[in-house]
Amino acid sequence: MGEFSLIEKYFSFHSLQRNRGYTALGIGDDAAILNVPPGQQLVVTMDTLVADVHFPLDTDPQQIAYKSLAVNVSDLVAMAATPAYFLLSITMPEEDEYFLEAFSQGLFEAADEFDIPLVGGDTCKGPLSITIQASGFIPLNRYVTRCGARIGDRIFVSGVLGAAALGLEAVQNRVDLPIQQEQFCLIALNKPQPRLDLINLLRKYATAAIDLSDGLIGDLGHILDNSKVGAVIDRQKIPAYEALNELNCFDYALTGGDDYQILFTVAENEIGDLMHSADQQKLELFEIGEIVKSGYLMVDQDKSTDLSTYRGFDHFVT
Amino acid sequence: MGEFSLIEKYFSFHSLQRNRGYTALGIGDDAAILNVPPGQQLVVTMDTLVADVHFPLDTDPQQIAYKSLAVNVSDLVAMAATPAYFLLSITMPEEDEYFLEAFSQGLFEAADEFDIPLVGGDTCKGPLSITIQASGFIPLNRYVTRCGARIGDRIFVSGVLGAAALGLEAVQNRVDLPIQQEQFCLIALNKPQPRLDLINLLRKYATAAIDLSDGLIGDLGHILDNSKVGAVIDRQKIPAYEALNELNCFDYALTGGDDYQILFTVAENEIGDLMHSADQQKLELFEIGEIVKSGYLMVDQDKSTDLSTYRGFDHFVT
Repeated sequence: MGEFSLIEKYFSFHSLQRNRGYTALGIGDDAAILNVPPGQQLVVTMDTLVADVHFPLDTDPQQIAYKSLAVNVSDLVAMAATPAYFLLSITMPEEDEYFLEAFSQGLFEAADEFDIPLVGGDTCKGPLSITIQASGFIPLNRYVTRCGARIGDRIFVSGVLGAAALGLEAVQNRVDLPIQQEQFCLIALNKPQPRLDLINLLRKYATAAIDLSDGLIGDLGHILDNSKVGAVIDRQKIPAYEALNELNCFDYALTGGDDYQILFTVAENEIGDLMHSADQQKLELFEIGEIVKSGYLMVDQDKSTDLSTYRGFDHFVT
Repeated sequence: MGEFSLIEKYFSFHSLQRNRGYTALGIGDDAAILNVPPGQQLVVTMDTLVADVHFPLDTDPQQIAYKSLAVNVSDLVAMAATPAYFLLSITMPEEDEYFLEAFSQGLFEAADEFDIPLVGGDTCKGPLSITIQASGFIPLNRYVTRCGARIGDRIFVSGVLGAAALGLEAVQNRVDLPIQQEQFCLIALNKPQPRLDLINLLRKYATAAIDLSDGLIGDLGHILDNSKVGAVIDRQKIPAYEALNELNCFDYALTGGDDYQILFTVAENEIGDLMHSADQQKLELFEIGEIVKSGYLMVDQDKSTDLSTYRGFDHFVT
């Protein structure tokens, strides 16, 4: 069975079933054809997950697939875009039907949850690696970047931080957790949930946004660098996963990465409306600090910490 | 130096210089933003090149980059789309500045030649591999697929076949060529030229098209399968590279792959106009056969060969 049969068997059928009105031509030709709705801009992102770097080689293929799509969709959410379609390139050492069966299950579970159809891609022989290119639509000029934070804006986080990092410690047997905590942390690690429920709020209220893939400190740093501003954040207000303090590893909430919550800034005079909208949608948001002219501090009642000494996770730094 | 600095140093600057009117936001955020011109459809393709599978590990990085982009752009041409933008994901074992310097040179050489800007992507640590996602634009419903060939249509090839395959033999020291032939074949192998000059002819005249990446026989097979027709081709009319007959390896023109010429079909009553347009553009086209109801034959004066016993290059077949 060759490249074309693999695609046919595991991806084409499911893909065709899920085509939408804007898929003019899906899998099976040299390229796919999409109709972009009038008045919409196209938002494009691409992320690669490499075995032994981004996930252990023996990770459940269903989880690899799910997470590969989730992290890409999360990038779309961070721009306030609605998921539209994705392409998949999968490189694997040999035709492994067990792997592909489980992988395609995880992929289409995620694709259905995030409402994004697969329209094409590639399969190759080689060391295990997954690249997904995801695209979304957004009404003209309604996208949110990293460079719009202004002095006085408040800084928000959309949910609990540090559970995924703790999950990775558990997988690597570096920490022993009670069973319920372990399950929570493993789900946070393996099945991150892109915050699609925030898209409308972000479009309406956010001055800047980023998804927390590399850790709060590093990712907030990107917003500050791009917006040419500083920040003061309040340690007490950071929504750290509950077990972190007991385990004396609060830093996972700061630098752990892989949380895929959204970090965003909102002008002070919009906060009342934002919180009202969030309440109506039953969304919990955490205000953790404020944009200032310069500097990068964490305050904690008595003491303050210069955050510029922290780093986000950085693939090439060893 | 981490992921973000690498992107900055080797890709961002050149990328920003090349942004076009429809790039609303380029490299440097969670995603890039593009404006799709009104009345145009989006054409999307993605291909991965893996070290030791698609190219020897010691290939010049400049050539790897050039070819990675060329093969993706060739897929756009095969749909009759105009290149619009691309994303790059590069996975490499370690930060290698020599590699990245040469790679980015080859990449932007190709990007300039094919007039397609880089708008985003990813860099990862891991075994060397390049994934490019290229997108193009095409006026509404003017795209050309693999499934439009009709009985009586004539089959055309856009240029010489088999030189890239012979180049690969030369690289692997399995054949000894005169210096000029060797140079020609190595260029065919390492710097394939996507046939951008054919886009308008394809839109106007082609009933079906495919780019010759896997070899004439396999790729024509895709058109026949998708169009549910057969073909008869004339061995004498196949534009095989001149040295192939002398070396007794004519089959490279049939199954060699990597030629990136375009194979397309045209209705009989359009051929006069096609050839007139081609002459005006000084394009040489080769009519090699005809679409028939069923079967897949190569005729050669006295004898005929059943082509269904040939196969295109197939990554997982060993």
